[in-house]
Amino acid sequence: MIRFENDYAEGAHRRILERLLETNEEQTPGYGTDKHCEKARTYIRKACDAADADVHFLVGGTQTNTTIIASILRPHQGALSATTGHIAVHETGAIEAIGHKVLTLPSEDGKIQAEQVKALVEAHWSDAAHEHTVQPGLVYISHPTENGTTYSKAELEALSLVCRECGLPLFMDGARLGYGLASQGSDLSLADIARLCDVFYIGGTKVGALFGEAVVIVNDALKKDFRYFIKQRGGMLAKGRLLGIQFETLFEDGLYEEISAYAVELAMEIRAAFTAKGYSLRYDSTTNQQFPILPDAVLAKLGKTYSYSFWEKYDDTHSVVRFCTSWATKKENVDRLIGDIKRL
Amino acid sequence: MIRFENDYAEGAHRRILERLLETNEEQTPGYGTDKHCEKARTYIRKACDAADADVHFLVGGTQTNTTIIASILRPHQGALSATTGHIAVHETGAIEAIGHKVLTLPSEDGKIQAEQVKALVEAHWSDAAHEHTVQPGLVYISHPTENGTTYSKAELEALSLVCRECGLPLFMDGARLGYGLASQGSDLSLADIARLCDVFYIGGTKVGALFGEAVVIVNDALKKDFRYFIKQRGGMLAKGRLLGIQFETLFEDGLYEEISAYAVELAMEIRAAFTAKGYSLRYDSTTNQQFPILPDAVLAKLGKTYSYSFWEKYDDTHSVVRFCTSWATKKENVDRLIGDIKRL
Amino acid sequence: MIRFENDYAEGAHRRILERLLETNEEQTPGYGTDKHCEKARTYIRKACDAADADVHFLVGGTQTNTTIIASILRPHQGALSATTGHIAVHETGAIEAIGHKVLTLPSEDGKIQAEQVKALVEAHWSDAAHEHTVQPGLVYISHPTENGTTYSKAELEALSLVCRECGLPLFMDGARLGYGLASQGSDLSLADIARLCDVFYIGGTKVGALFGEAVVIVNDALKKDFRYFIKQRGGMLAKGRLLGIQFETLFEDGLYEEISAYAVELAMEIRAAFTAKGYSLRYDSTTNQQFPILPDAVLAKLGKTYSYSFWEKYDDTHSVVRFCTSWATKKENVDRLIGDIKRL
Amino acid sequence: MIRFENDYAEGAHRRILERLLETNEEQTPGYGTDKHCEKARTYIRKACDAADADVHFLVGGTQTNTTIIASILRPHQGALSATTGHIAVHETGAIEAIGHKVLTLPSEDGKIQAEQVKALVEAHWSDAAHEHTVQPGLVYISHPTENGTTYSKAELEALSLVCRECGLPLFMDGARLGYGLASQGSDLSLADIARLCDVFYIGGTKVGALFGEAVVIVNDALKKDFRYFIKQRGGMLAKGRLLGIQFETLFEDGLYEEISAYAVELAMEIRAAFTAKGYSLRYDSTTNQQFPILPDAVLAKLGKTYSYSFWEKYDDTHSVVRFCTSWATKKENVDRLIGDIKRL
Repeated sequence: MIRFENDYAEGAHRRILERLLETNEEQTPGYGTDKHCEKARTYIRKACDAADADVHFLVGGTQTNTTIIASILRPHQGALSATTGHIAVHETGAIEAIGHKVLTLPSEDGKIQAEQVKALVEAHWSDAAHEHTVQPGLVYISHPTENGTTYSKAELEALSLVCRECGLPLFMDGARLGYGLASQGSDLSLADIARLCDVFYIGGTKVGALFGEAVVIVNDALKKDFRYFIKQRGGMLAKGRLLGIQFETLFEDGLYEEISAYAVELAMEIRAAFTAKGYSLRYDSTTNQQFPILPDAVLAKLGKTYSYSFWEKYDDTHSVVRFCTSWATKKENVDRLIGDIKRL
Repeated sequence: MIRFENDYAEGAHRRILERLLETNEEQTPGYGTDKHCEKARTYIRKACDAADADVHFLVGGTQTNTTIIASILRPHQGALSATTGHIAVHETGAIEAIGHKVLTLPSEDGKIQAEQVKALVEAHWSDAAHEHTVQPGLVYISHPTENGTTYSKAELEALSLVCRECGLPLFMDGARLGYGLASQGSDLSLADIARLCDVFYIGGTKVGALFGEAVVIVNDALKKDFRYFIKQRGGMLAKGRLLGIQFETLFEDGLYEEISAYAVELAMEIRAAFTAKGYSLRYDSTTNQQFPILPDAVLAKLGKTYSYSFWEKYDDTHSVVRFCTSWATKKENVDRLIGDIKRL
Repeated sequence: MIRFENDYAEGAHRRILERLLETNEEQTPGYGTDKHCEKARTYIRKACDAADADVHFLVGGTQTNTTIIASILRPHQGALSATTGHIAVHETGAIEAIGHKVLTLPSEDGKIQAEQVKALVEAHWSDAAHEHTVQPGLVYISHPTENGTTYSKAELEALSLVCRECGLPLFMDGARLGYGLASQGSDLSLADIARLCDVFYIGGTKVGALFGEAVVIVNDALKKDFRYFIKQRGGMLAKGRLLGIQFETLFEDGLYEEISAYAVELAMEIRAAFTAKGYSLRYDSTTNQQFPILPDAVLAKLGKTYSYSFWEKYDDTHSVVRFCTSWATKKENVDRLIGDIKRL
Repeated sequence: MIRFENDYAEGAHRRILERLLETNEEQTPGYGTDKHCEKARTYIRKACDAADADVHFLVGGTQTNTTIIASILRPHQGALSATTGHIAVHETGAIEAIGHKVLTLPSEDGKIQAEQVKALVEAHWSDAAHEHTVQPGLVYISHPTENGTTYSKAELEALSLVCRECGLPLFMDGARLGYGLASQGSDLSLADIARLCDVFYIGGTKVGALFGEAVVIVNDALKKDFRYFIKQRGGMLAKGRLLGIQFETLFEDGLYEEISAYAVELAMEIRAAFTAKGYSLRYDSTTNQQFPILPDAVLAKLGKTYSYSFWEKYDDTHSVVRFCTSWATKKENVDRLIGDIKRL
């Protein structure tokens, strides 16, 4: 079975494993206070053009979302999110488990627009009994979204402006951020994101690392006491250096961008193969996840050799599925898949 | 600086890193459903002589404690713990953050005794207004304790009996379990622990792994839906195989026991050096952590070459400090330390 | 201003105040253990034909919903509710604040149907990654709903059946239960409700009492330790007798039913006046709340004399508003309103 | 049985019940926005000499403690309290249930001293790994304490000063505040309390009202969004006027002070009777609660006519018990008790 079902099927980029081996016997202090973490922070601040940002390293996505949101909201506030947002559907109620409602905004493509945020905020405050309802407290977006779509610079600027007008921190879940930055046609840089968001994270788990997410807190007001939150929510790795070493490797000379671009390129080839064959796409993704709408018979056939994720039933005879590439995807496997698509 | 301050100063046992490299390009399904996790589960069940136990892999200690306790207690219940228990002092209120009080029992050495549990439970139920107070819901112990002490089989049997009489699950935090099993004079086996506890975990972070804790649920009543809790509390690693591979390596042929014994042996040599020199020990630890009471002048001198943890002031001129060994400790460094102690 | 905006604009039924005066100097033990509470429990069990039910008294609706749900769900479970359910919109995230997601089902009229519950439950369990999502844990309904609509016996039986098949406790919020029982055409008795639900409450605040809700727990599995939950959630009134005295008065000789019927009768007269005048109703309510769709000009006119609640904009020139009656509504005020409607 | 076991055995002061009757048919808006609440707020601000204070009305003590603490602390912070503080022992873990640890300070008499607070705060911040422990977030005191003792003005000024130096809001639980103000020898006025605390409440439940606590928020930084917290924690009474009417009555012409003084006077007579007879007191209480240490044989005898609370075993043949007076205590019952004490 050749796996295209997700972007975390392999271990880590070889250079990361090598670096772990090289540094294995070094003795370092714990909990993210070592020199590897410090170097990684420096590289990331530079990549983000955000010299004053706080950078922290956590282990996984759900944990990172929970920790950041816990650190921002007061108990009567909720997080705005697209109905399809990861925090709204796929974290077993982790946000509710820390006491907060996810205030969902309808979305066809996984993105939310500035006007939606504005409308919800205005509706809240114009309600005479607003204290009977959850107060909007922050805006959560994912980039790329769970559907592979991305925000344009203009869209993110509009969102950021509304958030600042409304006093709502803007938080970007960047579990797949590399693939968003490498998205074909994307005009958003890391520096733009750091300028427009209040806090975001740079995903490592799906982009070359064994695991790990780098949180970048740009807004000074959100920096205070964040290490307490990491510890309380179980994210403070004793051997914090493991995260430092990985992000050091990814950001010291552009590895993160390079392997992201590679994965997106392969994904676009798969996309082209499906569309050339006349199949439609459920979402217009220009990132590493592709969502073709395929006849169930075709899926059965492809499924003998390739694994994919089932997304949803489209109609009685078609399904939407997900094919993912990643930094680890082998070119020859993509070629073989494309050949098989052509021969369908 | 030669570090004896903790037992997580290095990376992982070389065999673990090699195995990660060997398996790096394998494609596996996510979230702990891969074959490495399955193998590791089999090895651990065997080592525990607990064929029906559920085995889950989590990333770190605080997360594991939180997840297990969340899965057991109802909202009005609390966890009994020694006042020195990790959950009572060093987890930034993680247990309270999930809604539960830690009901502390005084302890000189880090252990709690069966009679203490019994007395607290009886006091609760004999209070006419018991519903105005937190109901005892489980008993948390650490083995070895935070002070390096260990339970004897007789002590654990007594605790287990009282817990079963009182209807309280007994949960053992085994963050350093290897060093407890290898403790000189210990008569407790993994199989005993599995027989006497309802749930426990086998720590990897401090015993050879990069990170990772293996939770063993023996009591059927505690097994239901545990994967939801792992996910909700942020402990479900996308690349679950990383945990599987590490525990597979540690348990396939006795590596876990072997490296634990090595660390304890070195620690006992350090202990002997201090006592030979006439220094007392704060706790009677037969595990990898040693707590000598030293004159501050001596500490200043040793501190030029060796790092240790400050534990507490003993009197105006003495302090209790902690020297740790681990699977990674170099024999030559211990020899050098012992030489320096002799020359004090 | 004559108030029809809600059903809690006045104090309490005169007989309740008299009884409070009569008993004022009695000395009773606290926290709901007095003889008035005991009598009230007996009357309520009889009215529900549920001799084994546990009956508890709490102060208000949000508190009661929170307490009941906290006592039933495990942390990874959520409460199913109509999108319009009180717990989903008007409790400032109280359910999320105790850690649980509200899993909403779309509803036009405020009710949910057995098939919706079944579909959601089946979708959950058929998802291979179900532990990544919130597990359905109970079903919350309000009767009458926030829109004044009511369940028929057949609907409630179907819901109850599905809930039992799915292992989900069925919880009825009866903040306005009296008005539901008195609803014209209703075929549901208190005994039916007690037979078909696992837990429900009989609202006092809106039906004659100063305040207070009587929780009836029918399902034995939900009875354990409920008093701890009342205390922890702040609902255990020191002078519990205040609640006992009120429910004793309401249930000793049918006062609750009598004053509910009176309020519904007046509401139906108002409804008839609006429809006679050609106005439509937003919901087909046969209870004490009526929701006419009125031209904004008409509203401005009526608003000079009568208060009502704004519900929602219907179109550019019309709004949906709510007129409530209650046990305290004066017949002459209703007559005056009806006269003014006729003269519009 | 003549009850001295607590101070909530009767209903309410007759003037409160009369006022409830007089106003019963008034129609008012809900949720504390009516004119009675507004009047009560004005009276209370005046009594506290705190023209800018926010005043809110809640139903009971546990609820009020929970709501205030939830509104102040961030998730990684805890509340400092005496080990005997109500929040530390008698609220079924309500503070933990909202996510916060109670950081206890040892206390013999129920009070905490400025130096204890300072020491705990300094210990926290001087710990290099302070983010592994709960951060001090506020200081909770009760006045009078659960043991009937009171703070002097000098003590409260010292506490207040330390709290402000440490950036910790000072919160006074005044469930029995009236009895503290009337305490013989007390030099603390309501205005002093408002000047020295950041937030406190004036208890009604135990001092003349049917129920109700008036929260006074003096510190501007703590005022924001407090109504959301009241609603979320279930404390927003639909008929908020019930609370307004009661506090209006208690504060319009000094009733609160008058009935508090009456109760304290009677308590001091009981105290004098016990000490005249040679019995010691467990606590030096000058308020409405008295804690004599009595031979168990004496208790058995008194227990035939009078109820008291068991507090703790003193030795094999003696117990500490509590005798309470209140606004409702009958002079003749106190005289009879005193007579019986004399005749022991």
